[in-house]
Amino acid sequence: MFNFKLGKKNKYYTLYSEIRKEILRGKLKEGTKLPSKRSLAEDLGVSVVTVQLAYEQLFAEGYVRTEERKGYFVERVESIAATVESRKKTLCEPQKKQYKIDLVKGSTPAHMFPFSTWAKLIRLVLADCGEHLLERVPCGGDYELKSAISDYLYRSRGIDADPERIIIGAGSEHLYGVIVQLLGRDTLFAVENPGYGKISSTYSLNGAKWVAVDVDERGMNIEKLASVGADAAHVSPSHQFPTGAVMPVSVRSKLINWAERGERFVIEDDYDSEFRLFGKPLESTYALCPEKVIYMNTFSKSLAPSMRLGYMVLPAALYEKYMSLFSTSANIVPLFEQKALAAMLNGGHFERHISRLKNYYRGVRKKLLERLDGICEVRDTGSGLHVIAKFPQAKDDGEIKAQALSRGVNIRCLSDYLLSPMEGVEKCAVINYSGLTL
Amino acid sequence: MFNFKLGKKNKYYTLYSEIRKEILRGKLKEGTKLPSKRSLAEDLGVSVVTVQLAYEQLFAEGYVRTEERKGYFVERVESIAATVESRKKTLCEPQKKQYKIDLVKGSTPAHMFPFSTWAKLIRLVLADCGEHLLERVPCGGDYELKSAISDYLYRSRGIDADPERIIIGAGSEHLYGVIVQLLGRDTLFAVENPGYGKISSTYSLNGAKWVAVDVDERGMNIEKLASVGADAAHVSPSHQFPTGAVMPVSVRSKLINWAERGERFVIEDDYDSEFRLFGKPLESTYALCPEKVIYMNTFSKSLAPSMRLGYMVLPAALYEKYMSLFSTSANIVPLFEQKALAAMLNGGHFERHISRLKNYYRGVRKKLLERLDGICEVRDTGSGLHVIAKFPQAKDDGEIKAQALSRGVNIRCLSDYLLSPMEGVEKCAVINYSGLTL
Repeated sequence: MFNFKLGKKNKYYTLYSEIRKEILRGKLKEGTKLPSKRSLAEDLGVSVVTVQLAYEQLFAEGYVRTEERKGYFVERVESIAATVESRKKTLCEPQKKQYKIDLVKGSTPAHMFPFSTWAKLIRLVLADCGEHLLERVPCGGDYELKSAISDYLYRSRGIDADPERIIIGAGSEHLYGVIVQLLGRDTLFAVENPGYGKISSTYSLNGAKWVAVDVDERGMNIEKLASVGADAAHVSPSHQFPTGAVMPVSVRSKLINWAERGERFVIEDDYDSEFRLFGKPLESTYALCPEKVIYMNTFSKSLAPSMRLGYMVLPAALYEKYMSLFSTSANIVPLFEQKALAAMLNGGHFERHISRLKNYYRGVRKKLLERLDGICEVRDTGSGLHVIAKFPQAKDDGEIKAQALSRGVNIRCLSDYLLSPMEGVEKCAVINYSGLTL
Repeated sequence: MFNFKLGKKNKYYTLYSEIRKEILRGKLKEGTKLPSKRSLAEDLGVSVVTVQLAYEQLFAEGYVRTEERKGYFVERVESIAATVESRKKTLCEPQKKQYKIDLVKGSTPAHMFPFSTWAKLIRLVLADCGEHLLERVPCGGDYELKSAISDYLYRSRGIDADPERIIIGAGSEHLYGVIVQLLGRDTLFAVENPGYGKISSTYSLNGAKWVAVDVDERGMNIEKLASVGADAAHVSPSHQFPTGAVMPVSVRSKLINWAERGERFVIEDDYDSEFRLFGKPLESTYALCPEKVIYMNTFSKSLAPSMRLGYMVLPAALYEKYMSLFSTSANIVPLFEQKALAAMLNGGHFERHISRLKNYYRGVRKKLLERLDGICEVRDTGSGLHVIAKFPQAKDDGEIKAQALSRGVNIRCLSDYLLSPMEGVEKCAVINYSGLTL
């Protein structure tokens, strides 16, 4: 009945899969009786146990049925035009274009990361926590890290946040998604125009509606915000991307009062507040009214892009909502990373790292401004890691980018970050120098 | 004008915040001129630089404006009824109820986890990869882990998956969300009834619609599935939770053919296929038709609950869609975990761990069945880590749970997992023994 050889290894599996194939191919019709174990064993020169195992596997998967004292019979199985995949391993990612200088995608230079400290802390955590690292992490995150962040916020930003209200997430994009789940998909999010495209696209990806509100030199225009009927305003008051606008407190108070006039919330995206290169970081909007502002920040920018770790501080009302939605879920960030980061914050390593970075970037910035001097007008608020360079003589944005590209420089203009048309953004290049090295 | 003392430390910040307070309180009205730096410095007995810094901070935040050669003037700031949070640290999580025996929430006993191996691998990864651990991970995950999983799937499940098509995610819940983003929010998901509540609730949380389809002893009923007009079917054919039903190939082929009759997909949730305690794991539905099935599994159950790491294998069409949506995003799982797990898989540690676990659970299961013998009828397919125990003499499900609770045992019944009413599930307890120890 069967004409095939069984190798030395894993005989029963080979037998099982050969018979399986015959059934799927339709060669073995429904109702066909399989040969008795003994006879098949003799035919193939294998042990009865081998055949037994193969038949049992076929039975367990429903290819055959047994009938008391009669043996095994082929079951009815619809044939499938199953497409079989090739096993060839293709490259992981299409190779990205290489530039001499990239002023678009900026990421902290690896050599600035305190790797040895980090490695030491990880070994420490491994030794200290041991098997506790295997425990399920509460939805909001590990309490040790939450407290560490709370203390850090108090020291560095004057933010007085109950650790309980701090939610640990796997980076900004993940947190944007959680915010949609918290505020609901019928929420209309006002986002900054021009702005960081990931914000609006992530809201869309999560099924939420958004509207672009123009940004002027004082950040999001509150009059325009009030006119679009939004329920939440996603802003970065410390240093707007890409315009670099810093929102003065007079506008912030307007923003808060807008939120207080309804069931509205402000999302303060403090993505690079650590990098105010001169003077203290600007005060947060959160501090002005903790019950109306969701404060959020990430460590991906300040530590390492691979560190997908961010957090948000929730107003009481939203915290209740969060717990009702997620109290049965485990936190998404591995406890390991959380413990290591907590140690980094509590040991003061993080702040030392940031001030080293700031020193470094002051140098980069100085060199950069020297180089740009004369060829363009630079708008720089001393915050964050990018400046706006206006080229009045340029024909248009296309020419600016082409000129740069011809020198192997990847650059974008304000207009590339527009979500809806806007006046007066022409001939302005956005220079992100966070990836530059001296 | 100002009557307050400045301490020794951080004088300029104290000065800044005192003036700030006055402005927010409305004590310093709009237009008021601040004293000259020199005079204020003399009044307070501090250096002019201190005053200078304080004024600059106030200026940067927009509390004051400067007028050429006139000095600093208070800006217009709407007063805010800012609520101030208390700094008391509350407990992280409400203490969970403690049971003597928990047959609901099961998690691998910590002592079974090969912690020393894992710790060794982590030190190894740290030494081997060094600063590469800081690099941004491509959206789909680290290629080394993707290949390791591909090889593992081939060895253990006979699944032939191109590593490229494997997407690394932060556990099942996260992957369910990604699937919603892939298939779109207008997709109607068919979920198993009774079933694992997290699946339907996570779909809802992500804004997708779902419909419950009854499960019989052969898994999801395909006739009923065909009648509800669903676009995707979320099933666990190897071992349905909670009924324990194993879907025979005759039904699987019907399921595939249902999917092939339209723009439909099958989501094969293989959550505990590793734990078929006898014989080889059942063949996957994915292997029958890789272009219609999203195969998914997680390591949270097999390794440790804190390890929020799962994966899915995408059909070509969905892989294209995935890349178009996420190619600019970084993967959500830290590279560190990914490298460590890859080492665990490639070194054969994971499979050794699983077979040790299976041995262990065979013992637990044997003891459990002995104990249950006589008091109830046990339905057990030898797959997975839970069995169904029917108590025909019990008055109702309430009594079963009450009886158990009186002995400090936490237990649920089939009816607790119903998403829509269904016949014939009464008096059946679901006994999850994955958390039991010998």
